[in-house]
Amino acid sequence: MTEAPASFPGFSTAEMDEVWAPANLVAAMLEFEAALALALADAGLAPRAEAEAVAAACREPVEDPEAILATTWEAGTPLIALVELVTARLEPDGARHWVHHGATSQDAIDTALMLNARAALVVLEDSLLRISRLLHALTETHRSQPEMGRTFLQHARPTTFGRRAAGWLEPTLRHVQRIREARSQLAVQLGGPVGSLTDYGPAAHRVVTALADRLELQAPTLPWHTDRSRIWALVEAVEGPVRTASKIAMDLALLAQSGIEELRVRSGKSSSMLGKRNPIDPIRALATAEACRGAAAMITRAKPHELDRGLGSWHVEFYALPILFQTASAVLEALGDSLETLEIDGEAMAAKLPAESEEGLPSATATHIDAVIELFDEVVGGD
Amino acid sequence: MTEAPASFPGFSTAEMDEVWAPANLVAAMLEFEAALALALADAGLAPRAEAEAVAAACREPVEDPEAILATTWEAGTPLIALVELVTARLEPDGARHWVHHGATSQDAIDTALMLNARAALVVLEDSLLRISRLLHALTETHRSQPEMGRTFLQHARPTTFGRRAAGWLEPTLRHVQRIREARSQLAVQLGGPVGSLTDYGPAAHRVVTALADRLELQAPTLPWHTDRSRIWALVEAVEGPVRTASKIAMDLALLAQSGIEELRVRSGKSSSMLGKRNPIDPIRALATAEACRGAAAMITRAKPHELDRGLGSWHVEFYALPILFQTASAVLEALGDSLETLEIDGEAMAAKLPAESEEGLPSATATHIDAVIELFDEVVGGD
Amino acid sequence: MTEAPASFPGFSTAEMDEVWAPANLVAAMLEFEAALALALADAGLAPRAEAEAVAAACREPVEDPEAILATTWEAGTPLIALVELVTARLEPDGARHWVHHGATSQDAIDTALMLNARAALVVLEDSLLRISRLLHALTETHRSQPEMGRTFLQHARPTTFGRRAAGWLEPTLRHVQRIREARSQLAVQLGGPVGSLTDYGPAAHRVVTALADRLELQAPTLPWHTDRSRIWALVEAVEGPVRTASKIAMDLALLAQSGIEELRVRSGKSSSMLGKRNPIDPIRALATAEACRGAAAMITRAKPHELDRGLGSWHVEFYALPILFQTASAVLEALGDSLETLEIDGEAMAAKLPAESEEGLPSATATHIDAVIELFDEVVGGD
Amino acid sequence: MTEAPASFPGFSTAEMDEVWAPANLVAAMLEFEAALALALADAGLAPRAEAEAVAAACREPVEDPEAILATTWEAGTPLIALVELVTARLEPDGARHWVHHGATSQDAIDTALMLNARAALVVLEDSLLRISRLLHALTETHRSQPEMGRTFLQHARPTTFGRRAAGWLEPTLRHVQRIREARSQLAVQLGGPVGSLTDYGPAAHRVVTALADRLELQAPTLPWHTDRSRIWALVEAVEGPVRTASKIAMDLALLAQSGIEELRVRSGKSSSMLGKRNPIDPIRALATAEACRGAAAMITRAKPHELDRGLGSWHVEFYALPILFQTASAVLEALGDSLETLEIDGEAMAAKLPAESEEGLPSATATHIDAVIELFDEVVGGD
Repeated sequence: MTEAPASFPGFSTAEMDEVWAPANLVAAMLEFEAALALALADAGLAPRAEAEAVAAACREPVEDPEAILATTWEAGTPLIALVELVTARLEPDGARHWVHHGATSQDAIDTALMLNARAALVVLEDSLLRISRLLHALTETHRSQPEMGRTFLQHARPTTFGRRAAGWLEPTLRHVQRIREARSQLAVQLGGPVGSLTDYGPAAHRVVTALADRLELQAPTLPWHTDRSRIWALVEAVEGPVRTASKIAMDLALLAQSGIEELRVRSGKSSSMLGKRNPIDPIRALATAEACRGAAAMITRAKPHELDRGLGSWHVEFYALPILFQTASAVLEALGDSLETLEIDGEAMAAKLPAESEEGLPSATATHIDAVIELFDEVVGGD
Repeated sequence: MTEAPASFPGFSTAEMDEVWAPANLVAAMLEFEAALALALADAGLAPRAEAEAVAAACREPVEDPEAILATTWEAGTPLIALVELVTARLEPDGARHWVHHGATSQDAIDTALMLNARAALVVLEDSLLRISRLLHALTETHRSQPEMGRTFLQHARPTTFGRRAAGWLEPTLRHVQRIREARSQLAVQLGGPVGSLTDYGPAAHRVVTALADRLELQAPTLPWHTDRSRIWALVEAVEGPVRTASKIAMDLALLAQSGIEELRVRSGKSSSMLGKRNPIDPIRALATAEACRGAAAMITRAKPHELDRGLGSWHVEFYALPILFQTASAVLEALGDSLETLEIDGEAMAAKLPAESEEGLPSATATHIDAVIELFDEVVGGD
Repeated sequence: MTEAPASFPGFSTAEMDEVWAPANLVAAMLEFEAALALALADAGLAPRAEAEAVAAACREPVEDPEAILATTWEAGTPLIALVELVTARLEPDGARHWVHHGATSQDAIDTALMLNARAALVVLEDSLLRISRLLHALTETHRSQPEMGRTFLQHARPTTFGRRAAGWLEPTLRHVQRIREARSQLAVQLGGPVGSLTDYGPAAHRVVTALADRLELQAPTLPWHTDRSRIWALVEAVEGPVRTASKIAMDLALLAQSGIEELRVRSGKSSSMLGKRNPIDPIRALATAEACRGAAAMITRAKPHELDRGLGSWHVEFYALPILFQTASAVLEALGDSLETLEIDGEAMAAKLPAESEEGLPSATATHIDAVIELFDEVVGGD
Repeated sequence: MTEAPASFPGFSTAEMDEVWAPANLVAAMLEFEAALALALADAGLAPRAEAEAVAAACREPVEDPEAILATTWEAGTPLIALVELVTARLEPDGARHWVHHGATSQDAIDTALMLNARAALVVLEDSLLRISRLLHALTETHRSQPEMGRTFLQHARPTTFGRRAAGWLEPTLRHVQRIREARSQLAVQLGGPVGSLTDYGPAAHRVVTALADRLELQAPTLPWHTDRSRIWALVEAVEGPVRTASKIAMDLALLAQSGIEELRVRSGKSSSMLGKRNPIDPIRALATAEACRGAAAMITRAKPHELDRGLGSWHVEFYALPILFQTASAVLEALGDSLETLEIDGEAMAAKLPAESEEGLPSATATHIDAVIELFDEVVGGD
């Protein structure tokens, strides 16, 4: 069961696969365990030297991380194997007492998932910034390029391609802001078996705060073992840009259609028709976006988490969060690739305008574009 | 087609049905049209007297609002009938020129939906506040009532019922905050046919701002005809409390089980077994929550909105937003009803604790409860 | 709570609203109760005269059916009120004993829903037959009309419009077959409180069979209170044609696009642009299809039905089944309306073919079309 | 991009990973290409010797199958690389002409997916048969073991555990039947670029039939490039047993609850509480079932497949079908594991019956059980 199941290429990215590699999940759990031991010392519960010994034991390399994870469904949790591993590295003296002290499996797993989610959000943000820069360039370059607006796929009134690109850029920038906000709100999980932190006595709050400080995550008001609203917010922060990217990809495919041809996208080939221009990057973005939405539903449509620990509704997150982020990163990579290779056909656009058509950029459109550029400068900055 | 389709009772509330009544949707569209005319005057485009005449015509009662809406699928939009109605009320002079001036159907419909959503969010907030107060009382009253924690439905370690209630209260309070935030972020829609506001010339920005001021909605950076991220955020703000309420309802049903019986909920009857105690309010909350999640998916799983106007992905919102809010209000009403009639059996709780069990409230739990009470005071206040 | 919640017009049809009217649901429950009493007589349990008296009492008109349904969330089930209503119509003698005898609420409600579903499937079948006839005519008329095939929205190779229409027709015909099969598989529900039919003793099987015969539904192997696979099959039979209709509607909108214009659909108007041709029927089909898929998910994504009666997962069906069928009927009505008013522009189609293009219908295409026509004759017949 | 993305263990099975391994997908595409060449000979189009040469070239091992698949998003389809690979193995003479002759990429990919789906359905059927045998044994062994029925989680009336198990068994058996039916309905895909099979002339129908015969798949009436109703039926055949397994798993967890304890499941351990009995197999079944439902939605909630080839809606199937089957197989494995290790506590069951309770098995229940056993004998047979 330790073999990673096969998957069709292109539904993830190399960067995101690295974030969610089994070794990385185990490493993140050990990072939690190390930080917990040190936090126990910070809070005056554990002797500093023993805490340091635990932390050091957590930082030694793990030979077969997938084997650790594979114990989940035998033992009920991968933490038993992990705790044994760490404990075996320590002298049979006091330090062992502080391994996983007062914690429950969910504390380690949820915190590890949040640590990986943080790295994953950075990958998504980078992709969104790449897309933002490309859309910004399109907006500026084609600011006044006249183009027919199309409502319900019918010619409506003239607009400009710059305005269209600005309309793609603005929600993208707001998704960047939300991704950043989501990252800043990631919290540690620490509650012990039933969220009561009993073993820490009056030092409990200090332990949580120290743990959060060490891991640079938020300290939550309460353990959130079965309050998954934090996870929903994370999922929503990922779904937003994916839906927007999906809209942009579809628009690109529509504008590249035979008979419309206002732009050209990088062309995939056909196994039967030479010269056919298949919009392969938008297609990849659309395909991976459908996958991403299904992954999100695994979490957000799961049944309620029962009492003090969800039966399955929790465990599905171990599987669905990686898929959610992997497919999302594929969506954004594909859209970025498409935007990078986009060719605009200004003549084709202009040719469709009615003869009596307006000249120049409507002033509202200019104002709109300026406002989006301003938002771009604020969010993406001059880098 | 003007007949409201039949629906099983209990999947909405009277308050929410009122918000989403057809008459109210037409009224909101007319409120948009009135405010638009006045905004055109504010921005110096329309003569004040003519704008006032339009606004007055918009405020006269509409005889058959459902007939207006029913034209949607004949004419393609209900706005043609609505504009004709208003226009017919005006002298055939200048004022008519300013009716729906420079706007597109989606401007009126989206803005009307946002006006109704604002009222709907108030209804949900009130329900959440009711639930918060009930949970607050449970938390305080049973602060130290010992109870076994249950993870994976198995006895784990002792906690208190007050801590359990605090664990329900905290996410509820954060949902109140998010509902308020969602309300404050609702924006007007105004773009004209393709979002370019062409007809207003350099006054366009002033028109949008004046309209937003008059309707007490936000002025968006851009028209958002096919950027539905604002709608997704609204849906998410509604889904969050529904998922949490669903978790609380399931917990109540689990704790009320025959053989557990740590609490009693108001009892529905059985058509075949006198004396059986069916947890009818939690059942209603769970049923309506399943419905609400399906309604949310109508919007969030819809295909991308194409170019400058979505084909169907937009129109489904006319139907799904009301259902989303109606079912959500039913969830919260049912949960409130259940909490209001809840009876806690402290003895049954205490009887399950292991003999050697702890004495009194763990200090971390006390701190947790205090923190949640503090959040309650902040969010709900002393009223 | 008895007021039907408001709903945007066009997301149902008059025929389907009638099927799912509250009065009709109550009538169907009474039809169950009447048939049950008679089946008890058929099986030799109840005296024939008393059974006839019960059946007669069930057939008297109900003054306020919505009030009956509205008791659901007070009493826990509408059956208590319904049984009281029927009982009150009988002399206080033996006949009363046989009202709802040995049954549980879910028996009456599930069977009533199946009776209504049967009527609803007929409505859908009629709509599918209408669509089939229209597609059949298109297939025959434009059998050899050359048209460019479009893969990934790019010109690929020539096909004919008749072949395209045949590709729409074939799955439609198979959906007709499945709808018929689904109708023939609808089963009565009869199990008593926990599915053991205890009260009927050795006559139990005879009662179930007689009930099924009287209602012209299947007699299931077991009561299916918490085995909802029958409901899932029903939902799937409805979702299939909706997905196909959605594909056809999107294809129509794509072929009607400005710049493609190979066909014209009935045109909705624009509130701002005279002369714009909005594909309003395909739009309605697409919008209602999104709604229908959300309604399906209310049922198919609900949490497992617990032990001998689902908490909420069952009750959501009372609400979602009507919506599922209503929105499905709207999808099919809209598609039918669009096909009925479709105009094909053969010249526009032909103009896009490459100069060196083939002449005449490829023989495989002719064979394909013939095979679909043959299937049409089999499924739709000569009527 | 050829690296299989990491995945948490336990959400698939070894057998299913093998079915969907990249090498196996490439092998299945080559099986299609081999069978196509031979079918061209069968139909009298290709010289037999040349067709045999192509088939032989298709059967040589592929060194790096993942590299082939990875070309999908560069080239637009993996078929170009695959066809080059096969062609390079042939003398530059006539045989090359028949490689992928008249076919389009989707022909090869869809047929390959169906070949793999057939193997995958066998794996699921085997798991369902294992579950059926275990449920059959439970039904027989505990046929008359009295147990309280539980509706809405409240004691209702007595039933027997054998009846409960029969209620789990019956839908399982019907899912076996449906899985078999789904397998028998899998069809080849062959249409060429736009589904017109132009290149085969009047032999087209013979080619399709011969291909279907060789691959032991059905010959469809029409190519189904954008009619995905076959795929939906496949997905539904997989979702059904998963939903039922999910219900059984939840029931097991509910009956194993502390305070109910009518049965014991194999126990996972706790990282913090020795001796706690976590129902780890039901948990795994529930978690993987949530994942499976999300995977199904990737396909069934995808946007319509546009005209002659879906943009992304098709491609997502390459990713989602494997996940669907993998997670489904995990659900069934986990449920089988749980049933295999189940211990029934007859005394705990009996102790809950009311004092005045019935004696022996109600006759209807006996009849029910007999009917299910009969169905078992029919479906599973005496093996």
